[in-house]
Amino acid sequence: MRAYDLIKHKRDGGALTSEQVRALVAGYVDGSVADYQMAAFAMAVFFRGMSGDEVVGLTQAMLHSGIVVDLADVPGVKVDKHSTGGVGDKISLPLAPAVAACGVPVPMVSGRGLGHTGGTLDKLESIPGFKVDLPLTDYRRLVRDLGCCLIGQTKEIAPADKKLYALRDVTATVDCIPLIASSIMSKKLAEGIDALVLDVKVGSGAFMKKRDDAATLARTMVELGAGMGKQVVARLTSMEQPLGALVGNALEVLESIEVLSGGGPKDVVELTVELGAEMLVLGKVARDVADGRARISKSLQDGSAKERFGRIIEAQGGDRRVLDDVRRLPTAPRTLPVPAPRAGYVTAVDTEAVGIASMLLGGGRQRASDAVDPRVGLAVHRRIGDRVEAGEPLVTLHVADAGVDAAAARARDAFVIGDGPVPAPALFLERIAGGTA
Amino acid sequence: MRAYDLIKHKRDGGALTSEQVRALVAGYVDGSVADYQMAAFAMAVFFRGMSGDEVVGLTQAMLHSGIVVDLADVPGVKVDKHSTGGVGDKISLPLAPAVAACGVPVPMVSGRGLGHTGGTLDKLESIPGFKVDLPLTDYRRLVRDLGCCLIGQTKEIAPADKKLYALRDVTATVDCIPLIASSIMSKKLAEGIDALVLDVKVGSGAFMKKRDDAATLARTMVELGAGMGKQVVARLTSMEQPLGALVGNALEVLESIEVLSGGGPKDVVELTVELGAEMLVLGKVARDVADGRARISKSLQDGSAKERFGRIIEAQGGDRRVLDDVRRLPTAPRTLPVPAPRAGYVTAVDTEAVGIASMLLGGGRQRASDAVDPRVGLAVHRRIGDRVEAGEPLVTLHVADAGVDAAAARARDAFVIGDGPVPAPALFLERIAGGTA
Repeated sequence: MRAYDLIKHKRDGGALTSEQVRALVAGYVDGSVADYQMAAFAMAVFFRGMSGDEVVGLTQAMLHSGIVVDLADVPGVKVDKHSTGGVGDKISLPLAPAVAACGVPVPMVSGRGLGHTGGTLDKLESIPGFKVDLPLTDYRRLVRDLGCCLIGQTKEIAPADKKLYALRDVTATVDCIPLIASSIMSKKLAEGIDALVLDVKVGSGAFMKKRDDAATLARTMVELGAGMGKQVVARLTSMEQPLGALVGNALEVLESIEVLSGGGPKDVVELTVELGAEMLVLGKVARDVADGRARISKSLQDGSAKERFGRIIEAQGGDRRVLDDVRRLPTAPRTLPVPAPRAGYVTAVDTEAVGIASMLLGGGRQRASDAVDPRVGLAVHRRIGDRVEAGEPLVTLHVADAGVDAAAARARDAFVIGDGPVPAPALFLERIAGGTA
Repeated sequence: MRAYDLIKHKRDGGALTSEQVRALVAGYVDGSVADYQMAAFAMAVFFRGMSGDEVVGLTQAMLHSGIVVDLADVPGVKVDKHSTGGVGDKISLPLAPAVAACGVPVPMVSGRGLGHTGGTLDKLESIPGFKVDLPLTDYRRLVRDLGCCLIGQTKEIAPADKKLYALRDVTATVDCIPLIASSIMSKKLAEGIDALVLDVKVGSGAFMKKRDDAATLARTMVELGAGMGKQVVARLTSMEQPLGALVGNALEVLESIEVLSGGGPKDVVELTVELGAEMLVLGKVARDVADGRARISKSLQDGSAKERFGRIIEAQGGDRRVLDDVRRLPTAPRTLPVPAPRAGYVTAVDTEAVGIASMLLGGGRQRASDAVDPRVGLAVHRRIGDRVEAGEPLVTLHVADAGVDAAAARARDAFVIGDGPVPAPALFLERIAGGTA
């Protein structure tokens, strides 16, 4: 079947076989299917969606376009976590070492920040010397020896996904659930995992603003995992306000070190514990989620998670002394409070705007090719439901030279202040798992 | 606004301004908008449609991407006819000289056949010596001197349409009414016309199988014409069976000569008279359609249309003696009757299959780059409602060496034979015109 016929069939509401989808992607990679044909296909998928078989075919095609890391010689069930991205979401940093310290290997390939969201790689790189571009041989060795390695997507991993993602990015076909699900899963499965915990964000700071869309994405990925023989558990969690108190690269490392030292903001700790507990259950180290929670909490309290993070930092070329002396992290030259324009209660936060404020200061990227400034970001002083007096700071900007006025305006306007108190939104919204998880 | 934003806006159901559409097409022509972006946009248009303003913007952008012929020095109202294409549709051949003979200049830029449909240029080229690739200077001179010139789309005419059409052809975005309408109208308006009669075909041999779709296309083009200051009248006519008795390039010239000699099949004559009458009214030569019919009929009966065709053939390098000696037309080496498999009444014809039979014999093109054999085609002996006995020929194939068995099977299977008589379908279905026509 020609690419034309496959595009037309999808356009007219038909379902392709998973073989047909695989052939299309293979043709796209080898150049026999033109990028304009793939762009038309992606737009047709935007309107028509994809069947379960189609998503599996697409994921398999992208997965097998590159190297699938073989971690068979690493003992235990390898489990990773993926978040769909938000503002202040630094959970991977305390989570990965905590889970590894509890005995479950965590092979973690992360991404960079784009738009209003930060990226784990950018945060890690604000630790002096930390290298995220290790070759896959080192990655395999560290997962085996330390139970964890934190790297970026290499050229060998899912190159078809890389090519298709770049095309979607310029043809307005990014926000399409089957394409998002297959993109995430092809990369995650290429890491060599046995199971995966998904943190699907919902709310004003998430890509999915609506809970229904987030649930659909979560279900798509859980089913996709099942279709490919991997257990996947998804948690829908709130992104109606920034996660934790700090947003920005070095600032989020700082907050992660607080959590690894047994402190840190309540929501960051709770989410780390909850997602870690799911990973320990999938990794067959915890009996159930309650047991998992206890084990993760203990690893944060007794220093074992922090100790493990120190070994990971060292193994990846970083300065592990930051864990005990956070002044070794890069710091913004000055700070600037953003005062509340009136007294009242915070009733809502435009969390995406908070993320954009950090980006405008240089902490994020407008385009994938932009550089980030690890020093800048903001500290959030009020959460939904909190009382604030006129003139009290809502946030404090950590600034260098870029974007100060624009960021201050964005941050101030992001907070909706009303007359009466409102309840704080729940962090945990829904758990979606397959038949056996 | 970036191309990305325009694609996304259209994808999400928004309407662009006609300036935005023009900017998009201009960017596509100059290369700043990539072909994959235009493909995604076209697919979004397939699903979302276009507003009147958008179609006008698109048409203007494509029209002004090349030369718009200026026929201001040709006296009179210049009127052309365009058909959306069918099987056996040779109407342009008797029509253009008849209308010119009645005093209305006909500047006609035609296309080639593709798939199951024939093209006027291919038919004209079966007249020995006839040249359709005249430069625009000759075209202008012949329209002025003879009232008619029959050429193909030159490189200078609507190059953006040419580029976009080629892209649509490989991305399954051809059958989309606003894109069809703007493609047709940008080419027609570039000819230098003042008014246009559209023959929108409906039925088993047409691109539009459904009357509603055909009516929508017709209305879109009538409104588009009005939006660009041109009077457009559309006629919806039946393509439930081949037009006339002959299908194929030289065969259709032969049938056209019959009509120009005062004879020919009833449906071909009626359609020529009707469309010609509309053109004479738009051209302000006839008082009304009835007057127009009388004038066109007279030109076919008194030889003036045939005489005009002779002068056009001569001016375009062809052998005008074919008009009086059709043996000078290319002829297939042999013929092959296709017998009816049973007795009964023809109740339906898969007209597209009849067109494909002709194509398989070499009379049409599967791809735009294919050559055509002017000699081959078929004669249709039975029409819907006709009685046929078992073994009597339904059609006679005019064959050379290619595709005889496949064409015979297609032609035989195209005729549905039932037990009782059915009424012949009406040729004229609907007339769609703007406020003043």
